[in-house]
Amino acid sequence: MARYNVPPLENLVEQFEKMPGIGHKTAQRLAYYVLNLSDAQADEFAKAVIDAHTKIHYCSKCCNLTDKDICPVCADVTRDHSVICVVETPRDATAVENTHEFKGVYHVLHGAISPLNDVGPDNLTIKELISRLADDSVKEVIMATNPTVEGDATALYISKLLKPMGVKVTRLAYGIPVGGDLEYADEYTLAKALEGRSEI
Amino acid sequence: MARYNVPPLENLVEQFEKMPGIGHKTAQRLAYYVLNLSDAQADEFAKAVIDAHTKIHYCSKCCNLTDKDICPVCADVTRDHSVICVVETPRDATAVENTHEFKGVYHVLHGAISPLNDVGPDNLTIKELISRLADDSVKEVIMATNPTVEGDATALYISKLLKPMGVKVTRLAYGIPVGGDLEYADEYTLAKALEGRSEI
Repeated sequence: MARYNVPPLENLVEQFEKMPGIGHKTAQRLAYYVLNLSDAQADEFAKAVIDAHTKIHYCSKCCNLTDKDICPVCADVTRDHSVICVVETPRDATAVENTHEFKGVYHVLHGAISPLNDVGPDNLTIKELISRLADDSVKEVIMATNPTVEGDATALYISKLLKPMGVKVTRLAYGIPVGGDLEYADEYTLAKALEGRSEI
Repeated sequence: MARYNVPPLENLVEQFEKMPGIGHKTAQRLAYYVLNLSDAQADEFAKAVIDAHTKIHYCSKCCNLTDKDICPVCADVTRDHSVICVVETPRDATAVENTHEFKGVYHVLHGAISPLNDVGPDNLTIKELISRLADDSVKEVIMATNPTVEGDATALYISKLLKPMGVKVTRLAYGIPVGGDLEYADEYTLAKALEGRSEI
């Protein structure tokens, strides 16, 4: 008996196994969970998968995910459209949004420049970002890419493109995380925190 | 912005969050994974969910999961149909099958008697098990329920029903797991291992 000998079940387990962080045991557990759903619940789940796929696309302004033409942030006239926060992924935009400190708008690159992974500037939404700067209404672009080699390279690349256009380009501060412990901070972070020290 | 403000995405995250062992962060990761699938792959995944639901049902003999009328084990004439191994779940049957030591057939109870969870004998496939013993061809029933209070109670309950029918009822051996460490065995397991000791 190859595993179960129930092809629809094996197929479902395989589907779950392909997901990130899901091993064989977890995939089995999830597949049995799906089997134990009512027919209506299973339909609802399958519909959610298809719906997410057919209804969600990029915002025509900021390239964040949305089910409308323009995402709620870009459509919100009370926000400051002269400040654009550039992030790598939609999740990063959500993270910034959750601080409740940022009242500008976003631009989602959908990745970072990474020659090792065959991701070049053309694979990101850099062209779309530049076209947003055409009408001179944008005053500042905040590079909020990840503090990694790829994120830094992307921030640098974009800032070099934007500076000749006369727009202010800033980068998120590096430093020790709030509530962190100096003892456990790595030397690069600590060096950056020293470098960026401010008067109190 | 409530989380994402993309209802189809939020819905998909919620669907994943309902699954056992899946928290909010993992649900997000899985939802983004689904978003990044190609349309064909997403269709395939949704179809796998629906297929598992519509095609899989109980084997009419052993109540294990199958997409046929009778499961491959019950349909296999080379197996010993006079020995029935009674397990709680289809996964337990797979576990026993994976030992490659058992050549009989199974009976899946789909649970264990548990008054706390409102599971009584009528919620299990005990009636179906008894009807399999009607024609006297069954010589032995091995109770392979879990070594828990519920599993033991279920094994005892069923054995009391079956013994008057003249069928031999056995129970899996309790003991220290192979490769285990005496030091870390709990006292109940060790007591059971002592009790069930055999001559070498």
